[in-house]
Formats: sequence, structure tokens, C-alpha cells
Amino acid sequence: MKLVTAIIKPHQLDAVKEALEAYGISGMTVSEASGYGRQRGHSEVYRGAEYTVDFVPKVRLEVLVDDIDASSVVDVILKTAQTGRIGDGKIWTVPVEDVVRVRTGEHGAEAL
Amino acid sequence: MKLVTAIIKPHQLDAVKEALEAYGISGMTVSEASGYGRQRGHSEVYRGAEYTVDFVPKVRLEVLVDDIDASSVVDVILKTAQTGRIGDGKIWTVPVEDVVRVRTGEHGAEAL
Amino acid sequence: MKLVTAIIKPHQLDAVKEALEAYGISGMTVSEASGYGRQRGHSEVYRGAEYTVDFVPKVRLEVLVDDIDASSVVDVILKTAQTGRIGDGKIWTVPVEDVVRVRTGEHGAEAL
Ligand SMILES: Nc1ncnc2c1ncn2[C@@H]1O[C@H](COP(=O)(O)OP(=O)(O)OP(=O)(O)O)[C@@H](O)[C@H]1O
Ligand SMILES: Nc1ncnc2c1ncn2[C@@H]1O[C@H](COP(=O)(O)OP(=O)(O)OP(=O)(O)O)[C@@H](O)[C@H]1O
Ligand SMILES: Nc1ncnc2c1ncn2[C@@H]1O[C@H](COP(=O)(O)OP(=O)(O)OP(=O)(O)O)[C@@H](O)[C@H]1O
Ligand SMILES: [Mg+2]
Ligand SMILES: [Mg+2]
Ligand SMILES: [Mg+2]
Repeated sequence: MKLVTAIIKPHQLDAVKEALEAYGISGMTVSEASGYGRQRGHSEVYRGAEYTVDFVPKVRLEVLVDDIDASSVVDVILKTAQTGRIGDGKIWTVPVEDVVRVRTGEHGAEAL
Repeated sequence: MKLVTAIIKPHQLDAVKEALEAYGISGMTVSEASGYGRQRGHSEVYRGAEYTVDFVPKVRLEVLVDDIDASSVVDVILKTAQTGRIGDGKIWTVPVEDVVRVRTGEHGAEAL
Repeated sequence: MKLVTAIIKPHQLDAVKEALEAYGISGMTVSEASGYGRQRGHSEVYRGAEYTVDFVPKVRLEVLVDDIDASSVVDVILKTAQTGRIGDGKIWTVPVEDVVRVRTGEHGAEAL
């Protein structure tokens, strides 16, 4: 299994969530983050105003997936989160050794 | 070493924390998250009311552990966080290549 | 590639950010967390007052780096976040299988 983490623009979350559901993803975790990339935040626009502080608000999205779905899920997020403007985000993939569903105690792909 | 991450119901945090301490875990990190699983949040109850939005509030718990403790720590969280109702959570385990204690500069298992 | 995650004292964030920029790091993600280590939070001081609750506020810093930079980045964070007092934090390193820049679709080291 893999954990796909994406840092995206907050206003792209709904579109990404819908695209992941359309792909067949059954769950995800969202949290607040902020950050910057190569422009150090200086020239990013957020909510219509140029953002002058370094850390620009972002959404962190995490999706646990089966190995076979990992690169497709990255592609779905990539295509949906992409506005073409700087600060669109990063997506990364980390290996996961086990996943458990707490309610049932199921392990592995059954737990996704 | 491993990083065990758990997304659990907020009101289960105290019980899980106490169970981890009883097991001998010496530290943990907690943050806010929200999410949904196979029911897409629709039928989950939170604070006594049916939650109608998609993203249900959850707590993220992270525990860095020695390899030998990883599966026991997963079991401790699983047993303590389990209410038997949908939305009880997910636990996953990721490999960790190094851990450092900032105050002392110790690396590896010494740093846990 | 690697993901270096650090849980540090909030007032050390600016110094760590500047040190990482001086090292040449081009981006980072920050979020709020809380936690405790071996002292279980009891004897930690936060904002001049002894903190009596278990979970002490911390900042989570995440930096995606090329393999060759991982240990230097850990060292930069370690040296800058270190105050010598308890609760200075933890840093850990996790393997990353792929990174994507959302705006361009670049993968791997090109995406950092
Ligand atoms: N090296 C990094 N490590 C961790 N997080 C990063 C890194 N680079 C960027 N991020 C996170 O991703 C978010 C978006 O980054 P961003 O899209 O600006 O990347 P970029 O490489 O500068 O690409 P672009 O040139 O399209 O702006 C940042 O706000 C930050 O949260
Ligand atoms: N595939 C996933 N990827 C990332 N996070 C997930 C995933 N599935 C669930 N989560 C996180 O775990 C939380 C709890 O999920 P949940 O317990 O509802 O899982 P489930 O598989 O639907 O199990 P159940 O049938 O018992 O409800 C969600 O709110 C979300 O934050
Ligand atoms: N085992 C752990 N797993 C996950 N997070 C941890 C762990 N131990 C500590 N942390 C996180 O790191 C933060 C700082 O921990 P802390 O510096 O107190 O570690 P420590 O091992 O007790 O070192 P010290 O003796 O210097 O205080 C905690 O608030 C918590 O968020
Ligand atoms: Mg950028
Ligand atoms: Mg569910
Ligand atoms: Mg401590």
C-alpha cells in the first residue's frame, strides 16, 4: 500500500475530492497546512489578494491506496488541482507497511 | 523504526493516550484532521448529532516506535479506539530511516 | 527522495526556516501540532509559563529533499531548533517514492 499526500490550493479541494470519488477512492483525510515553494510565497495570490507573508495557506490531502492505484491517484489529483499558476502544490508517495480498519480490525488491502 | 499514524474519533484520544502510556510509549504527536471513509461521512454521528457534511472531525495521532513495538502499538490503539461504530478510524505504519532527539542530537532508537 | 519531518518549538520556526533557506532548501510545509515526549509535557515551559496540560503546542515542519541532502537538512534543523531545554523536538526521515510538482507535472528530483 501507499500513502499519497498532496499539498494543494484550498479552493481546489472540492474538485479533487469529487475526482477521487469518481475514480473510486473510498476515503481520505484532510488537514490545514501552510507553506511555500520555489517562490518562497512572495508572489502567490490567495483569495484574490497578493499574499505577502511567506507561508501561504494550503490544504493537505492524504489518501491510502493499494499499490496498483497509487500512480493513477497521483494523476487524478495532479490533473484536478492544476490551475497552471505558481503554488499549485506538491504530491508525494510514501510506502505503507500496513493499514488497519479500527472498527473491524481488518488489515491490509481489506482495510482500505 | 516505524511511524504509526492513527486517525481516530476525537473522544477516544484520552483513552488511547492512557493505553499507550500504560504500554510504555514515551511520546506522541497529535493534530487536527477531518475525513471520511467508505460511508463518505454521510451516516456518521459526531457529538450526538448526525453529521451531514462530508468531512467529519478526527484526531491524528502519530507515534514513533522501535520496529519491535510497531505491531503491539497498532494493537493497543486498535483496541482502545474501537467503539464498533462506523468511522472508528484507520491506523497505518510507515518505515522510518532515522529519528533524532533535538535537545541532545541522539539518533536512532536512543532518540525515541 | 526523502521526507524530513520535524516537531519543534513554535518560537524556533523562524530561525529554522532561515537556516533552511540559507542551506538552499526551496520549499517547506508547516502545520500545527501538539505533543509530548519523555516528560509527558509536565515540566515543559511554553510562553514563559509552566505548561500543565499534557499536550504542549508544537510546530510540524516538513521538507521534501533529494537523498543527498537529507542528513544535512536534518543537521540544519537540529542545530537551529536546539535550545538545550527539554521538549526541543524530534526529527525523522521517511523514504519517498515520488514527488510531483502540480503546476507542471514534473516528477522526481525535478519536482523539488
Ligand atoms: N520541498 C518541499 N518540501 C515540503 N513541502 C513543499 C516543498 N515545496 C513545496 N512544498 C509545499 O507545497 C506547496 C506548494 O508548493 P509550490 O506549488 O509553490 O511548489 P513549487 O515547486 O514552487 O512550484 P511552482 O513553481 O509551480 O510554484 C507549498 O506551499 C508547500 O506547502
Ligand atoms: N483511504 C483512506 N485514506 C486516507 N484516510 C482515510 C482513508 N479511509 C479513511 N480515512 C480516514 O480515517 C477516518 C475514519 O475512516 P473510517 O473509520 O470511516 O473508515 P472506513 O473504512 O469507512 O471504516 P468503517 O466502515 O468502520 O467506517 C476518516 O475520517 C479519514 O480521515
Ligand atoms: N515517540 C514519539 N512519537 C511521536 N512524536 C513524538 C515522540 N516523542 C516526542 N514526540 C514529539 O516531539 C515533541 C518534542 O518531544 P521532546 O523534545 O520532549 O522529546 P523527548 O524525547 O522527551 O526529549 P527531551 O528529553 O529533550 O524533552 C513532542 O511534543 C511530540 O510532539
Ligand atoms: Mg511555488
Ligand atoms: Mg467509514
Ligand atoms: Mg521531552
